[in-house]
Amino acid sequence: MSGFVSFLSDFGHDDEFVGVVHGVVARIAPDVRIIDITHGVDRGDVRGGALALTRAVQYLPEGVIMAVVDPGVGTVRRAIAAETEVGFFVGPDNGLLSPAVAMVGGASKVVSIENPEMRIPSSGSTFHGRDVFAPAAAVLASGQASIDELGPVVEPDSVTPLLLPLPEVQPGKVNGRVWWVDRFGNAQTNISPEDLELSGIDRSQTVTVRVGATTHEIPWVDAYGDVDDGDLLLHIDSAGMMALAQRDGHAADSLNLAPGLALTLEG
Amino acid sequence: MSGFVSFLSDFGHDDEFVGVVHGVVARIAPDVRIIDITHGVDRGDVRGGALALTRAVQYLPEGVIMAVVDPGVGTVRRAIAAETEVGFFVGPDNGLLSPAVAMVGGASKVVSIENPEMRIPSSGSTFHGRDVFAPAAAVLASGQASIDELGPVVEPDSVTPLLLPLPEVQPGKVNGRVWWVDRFGNAQTNISPEDLELSGIDRSQTVTVRVGATTHEIPWVDAYGDVDDGDLLLHIDSAGMMALAQRDGHAADSLNLAPGLALTLEG
Amino acid sequence: MSGFVSFLSDFGHDDEFVGVVHGVVARIAPDVRIIDITHGVDRGDVRGGALALTRAVQYLPEGVIMAVVDPGVGTVRRAIAAETEVGFFVGPDNGLLSPAVAMVGGASKVVSIENPEMRIPSSGSTFHGRDVFAPAAAVLASGQASIDELGPVVEPDSVTPLLLPLPEVQPGKVNGRVWWVDRFGNAQTNISPEDLELSGIDRSQTVTVRVGATTHEIPWVDAYGDVDDGDLLLHIDSAGMMALAQRDGHAADSLNLAPGLALTLEG
Repeated sequence: MSGFVSFLSDFGHDDEFVGVVHGVVARIAPDVRIIDITHGVDRGDVRGGALALTRAVQYLPEGVIMAVVDPGVGTVRRAIAAETEVGFFVGPDNGLLSPAVAMVGGASKVVSIENPEMRIPSSGSTFHGRDVFAPAAAVLASGQASIDELGPVVEPDSVTPLLLPLPEVQPGKVNGRVWWVDRFGNAQTNISPEDLELSGIDRSQTVTVRVGATTHEIPWVDAYGDVDDGDLLLHIDSAGMMALAQRDGHAADSLNLAPGLALTLEG
Repeated sequence: MSGFVSFLSDFGHDDEFVGVVHGVVARIAPDVRIIDITHGVDRGDVRGGALALTRAVQYLPEGVIMAVVDPGVGTVRRAIAAETEVGFFVGPDNGLLSPAVAMVGGASKVVSIENPEMRIPSSGSTFHGRDVFAPAAAVLASGQASIDELGPVVEPDSVTPLLLPLPEVQPGKVNGRVWWVDRFGNAQTNISPEDLELSGIDRSQTVTVRVGATTHEIPWVDAYGDVDDGDLLLHIDSAGMMALAQRDGHAADSLNLAPGLALTLEG
Repeated sequence: MSGFVSFLSDFGHDDEFVGVVHGVVARIAPDVRIIDITHGVDRGDVRGGALALTRAVQYLPEGVIMAVVDPGVGTVRRAIAAETEVGFFVGPDNGLLSPAVAMVGGASKVVSIENPEMRIPSSGSTFHGRDVFAPAAAVLASGQASIDELGPVVEPDSVTPLLLPLPEVQPGKVNGRVWWVDRFGNAQTNISPEDLELSGIDRSQTVTVRVGATTHEIPWVDAYGDVDDGDLLLHIDSAGMMALAQRDGHAADSLNLAPGLALTLEG
């Protein structure tokens, strides 16, 4: 049996980092196949990487999920592997894995990857993706080692959580934030349709979107086709969250939105 | 038997869209392998995507070709699958697939992908690449379903064509357009060597290239090595079309060329 | 038996070049798997591509290494295949392969790929990645042909070397160059820790880094965690070379470094 390693990072495609990680996995476990979730996470953006992983995780095949967005590399943060109902997660203990692990029901076991026999020795600094995470993912996906062989078990409570801003539901309005702007200019918020309904805002009404001192009247519709070309829309996006979009346009540019920005949706 | 899915889109590599589509295919049909043709098509550029697919199609393995460049997502355009002599094509019915399907001899059958059992349910908007096209490609490539199971047959004549500008051949000159500027600055035109020969322009002569009010005298040669470093050349490119190039340079920058621009080649 | 093809180029991801090469390999040898080392080498940057290949080569699985950075395409430079202890190398004879081949112990045989039966005919210019290198890599990786069937043996001495600047070790200082700036802003030099030690500069001392008329006092440490947030550091990077980095920063931007730039490390 040999499974999949699904791999997310902020390595980009300009350097050979991604290819080297693929090579290490292939040398250890030639039958394991790798799915590149994305390597376009902004440099060091742990939250952006965690959110992308959360959106992707339910669509990935069973096996190992390896994620590396690691601004603290070279400091004391641990390298961890977590066992869950859908497979293993491997990555730095900096919050990156936490929301996705929670989404699949939590970890039944977490270990700190410390076994030197499971690492590739480096003549200089450790490149954790290459020297620590890739070997761990390869042996777990191929069944060459159990998670216990990677290192000592740690308390699940000691794993670093990721603090995500929660929306604030009030009568008639919800305060939230932009979570993600995708290539097409769609701006996903941290507000769910249930949040809006709880505040008394209904599907198919027009919503006032307040961003700083600016307001926009935008209809909550089901699909792009429900508005005219060039018009803005509020809809439940394909990840199930409220998002601002523009038919044949780039909503984030039109509305001056960026990840992290606060906004209010009012009925 | 399990074949290949060759996958082209305008999803880019910054988000997890491409990885999620890979994941969906792997969950449905783990033995199917995916070739990423390119995901760098300009956002919503159906023509650019169709031309890239046309250039690539003869070099792809048998199986399924899945292409998603879909500015009309969320409107009423259909999702289609086409059966051809070299395998199946899957994508939106917006012209994207049409030139490549025509190039391989046309479709013997086209269906509208509507069977809800073949879709992945979404809690929000449908992400067609993930929820419609990936499942269809996975079942076709793995033989888990026939094309008829995807949905009702539609008239091939009802499939949206792609209108491509044709060159205008006159005695002594050909009016055409730039079709594609590649990473290396080569500017492919919609003019074939036969068009030039028909107009009386011969290989190995110098050609006057007229772009707006500007003209350039450029030799028609076989290869970069036939001109000096830094010089411009007109040649038959590796897709068989007339193209402007520059040895050790970027022809499109030097000549101010961009896709869609009109130009004239004169003897 | 069917091995891996590890593939490096300057093709980028905007066009379908990489996908077409994958397709050609899949059509000839469907069981061969491809590892994309990187396709983000700067256009025509043979030295940058050669250095990336050298850093990657020891981490790649046995099989074929195919590299295409080829500013001289269309001129008389040869296409070569080299046999080494770790497998085959395929690419243009322009120096691109030479440092990696040397690093794995040199070639026992080099041939010039000329056999027309091993090429894909093109209706226009030859796209060497697609028409020459991909078929050669596919038949070598799958064992469908021996290296001798690709073309005549050439003298190893006739293969184009790559001239790399060597550091100059003097008492108390080493003159070198920046070799590579990665996505994270780390600036790798051509100076090894042995060079520094030979000049009398010790680990864990502060080093004067001279770039043009500017000097910086930077500590030689083991890891990012040894300096404060925002501070610069000199360390042995994960490829074993001296590199300048910045904790939670972009060293190359902070120090105005770019590949090729001369610098001096002084004790």
